[in-house]
Amino acid sequence: MSGELVRDSVVIGDRTEASQIYNKGYYGYNLSGGGLELELLEALYLVESSRLEVTSDGRVLTLAELTAAAAAAHRDFEIKYIVYRDLRQRGYVVKSAGEDFDFRVFPRGGTPTTSTTKYWVAAISERAILNMADFMNDLDRSERTRKELLLALVDEEGDLTYYRADRNEPKGRLDEQWDGKAVPASLLEDRVLVFDEGGSERLHHHGFYGKHIGNVLQLSLLETAHLLEKGWITVSSITASRKLSSSRFMKHALKFQPDFKLRLAAYRDLRARGLVVKTGFKYGTHFRVYEDDPEKIHARYLVHALPEDNKSTWPEMSRAVRLAHGVKKEILFAWVREQGTEYLRLVRVRP
Amino acid sequence: MSGELVRDSVVIGDRTEASQIYNKGYYGYNLSGGGLELELLEALYLVESSRLEVTSDGRVLTLAELTAAAAAAHRDFEIKYIVYRDLRQRGYVVKSAGEDFDFRVFPRGGTPTTSTTKYWVAAISERAILNMADFMNDLDRSERTRKELLLALVDEEGDLTYYRADRNEPKGRLDEQWDGKAVPASLLEDRVLVFDEGGSERLHHHGFYGKHIGNVLQLSLLETAHLLEKGWITVSSITASRKLSSSRFMKHALKFQPDFKLRLAAYRDLRARGLVVKTGFKYGTHFRVYEDDPEKIHARYLVHALPEDNKSTWPEMSRAVRLAHGVKKEILFAWVREQGTEYLRLVRVRP
Repeated sequence: MSGELVRDSVVIGDRTEASQIYNKGYYGYNLSGGGLELELLEALYLVESSRLEVTSDGRVLTLAELTAAAAAAHRDFEIKYIVYRDLRQRGYVVKSAGEDFDFRVFPRGGTPTTSTTKYWVAAISERAILNMADFMNDLDRSERTRKELLLALVDEEGDLTYYRADRNEPKGRLDEQWDGKAVPASLLEDRVLVFDEGGSERLHHHGFYGKHIGNVLQLSLLETAHLLEKGWITVSSITASRKLSSSRFMKHALKFQPDFKLRLAAYRDLRARGLVVKTGFKYGTHFRVYEDDPEKIHARYLVHALPEDNKSTWPEMSRAVRLAHGVKKEILFAWVREQGTEYLRLVRVRP
Repeated sequence: MSGELVRDSVVIGDRTEASQIYNKGYYGYNLSGGGLELELLEALYLVESSRLEVTSDGRVLTLAELTAAAAAAHRDFEIKYIVYRDLRQRGYVVKSAGEDFDFRVFPRGGTPTTSTTKYWVAAISERAILNMADFMNDLDRSERTRKELLLALVDEEGDLTYYRADRNEPKGRLDEQWDGKAVPASLLEDRVLVFDEGGSERLHHHGFYGKHIGNVLQLSLLETAHLLEKGWITVSSITASRKLSSSRFMKHALKFQPDFKLRLAAYRDLRARGLVVKTGFKYGTHFRVYEDDPEKIHARYLVHALPEDNKSTWPEMSRAVRLAHGVKKEILFAWVREQGTEYLRLVRVRP
């Protein structure tokens, strides 16, 4: 079968050929006067699979020439083509999505006439920068249409990784009630020690704060800042008895941890959701997060905090997802904004 | 038993008590005039485990007072103490290592009088910065003494992760021989396509370059730069026929990948070692590396390239080790220097 390159599409004039191509895979768009108009990536896919020839000025174009024409007409054509081709080979009917996303994909076995869209698909180069504000905006547009958003990441060698993106509202089972008296604690460089055994006991009991090193409870800087804000502890330097104010302590913490405020905001929000939050250092993320007593259950989430103006690279995101997957936890990106913290979940999927 | 705080150590004058303490765990250093001198962390450990009281001016010090004295006398005392304590609890005899490292550790069941050192141990806060040049220097000092170097990383909550560090010389089984004629390839934004089927075949056969997308072989920018240097391919823009020089191509690649030179240097070195190198995007590292045909065997290594003046944070390193461990691969850090590329291997261990 044969089509003619007309500007940035390929037109199949012969009605029989046109309906054959359309009916077997729902390629192209039927023209009102009869015939079919194919997008360049549809045409290229049909040429690659030897189902079509494309001519221009009466001459059959080579695959190289057709690719060149497509590359000249569309930015990032190759990225989109790799994704289109892969989804088609997985047996999906794939159509361009117009303004909003790159593609829409119908459920397996579904067609544009019998089904509604299953996924919106964004074809993304691993070299693209992820701007959180834009991304969350896209995600919300997708969720408003009640479709899943599928990210198709194309690496430098043309391999594909798919992620499903959605918002998440993590929730724990902790209900912290405190019974009054603040526990004295001693600051020692970048950690804080509670020598008072009764106090240690209470802090550990009400929210699983700290870690016992012998009889001494050790609090991290984050735990300390949070407990100071709540008024559950007082902090003095271990070598002097004068108490530190919350803001004085904050200044101290910032010396050790330049992104302390970001982390603390995410920590505070997770705690307010009844979750138990511990460091994610071992996993290279900010936090591991438990729905209940960390000595009784495994952490359900790994959480990484991102600032409001965050711009991440995809290899960073990919790494975090992979890592969480490897330890059977969910990765949440905590987007810390002025108006509150929002959670993005990315899950690796095989569509 | 009881000792007296004397400046930054604790002295046990009573000879019977001194030899009891020394013989059960090899704590302290025998004084020439009799008695025993304990380092503060030894003393603190013995106090914590209720085997010792420390007095000052005739008064017994609390654990808090002794900790304060130790913190005043030694920088990062708490980090060192957490490591010391953990190794002791694992049943090792641990002694200070003097100038070189923090501790030396004897083989399990071994003592300073019957065994030589098994590990040098460096106690490191997760907040410390890893300066590659200094670190490799330490590693070499350790290897010269034929001891293993153990890194004890203390996270903000006082949890410990141990890494064994060594140099590595990865080696593959590939012997690339090329038979002459350069293959023409077409540049399309951030990838390069080979439409010539015979040429595709040869490139894939001689070193497993590229990835087939249908009949077209797609090369990454790195593969292209490497093959251009070797003279195995020629590259033209897909929309123009003029050939690109190696340096012109390099400029193009740098637009897409600011750290392209660093990656290419590591890539080149790994290839020269007979290894097959593919992108590590899925794992969030630079490369996954095979000793032979990537379609027949799993990648043995994940490799991350670091520049000569590299300063990394420990959470980054930790993440890479964890990730490699999760997918049953070894992580190598390729330290790209003027005089060549060197490899650091980190393995998570439980001592």
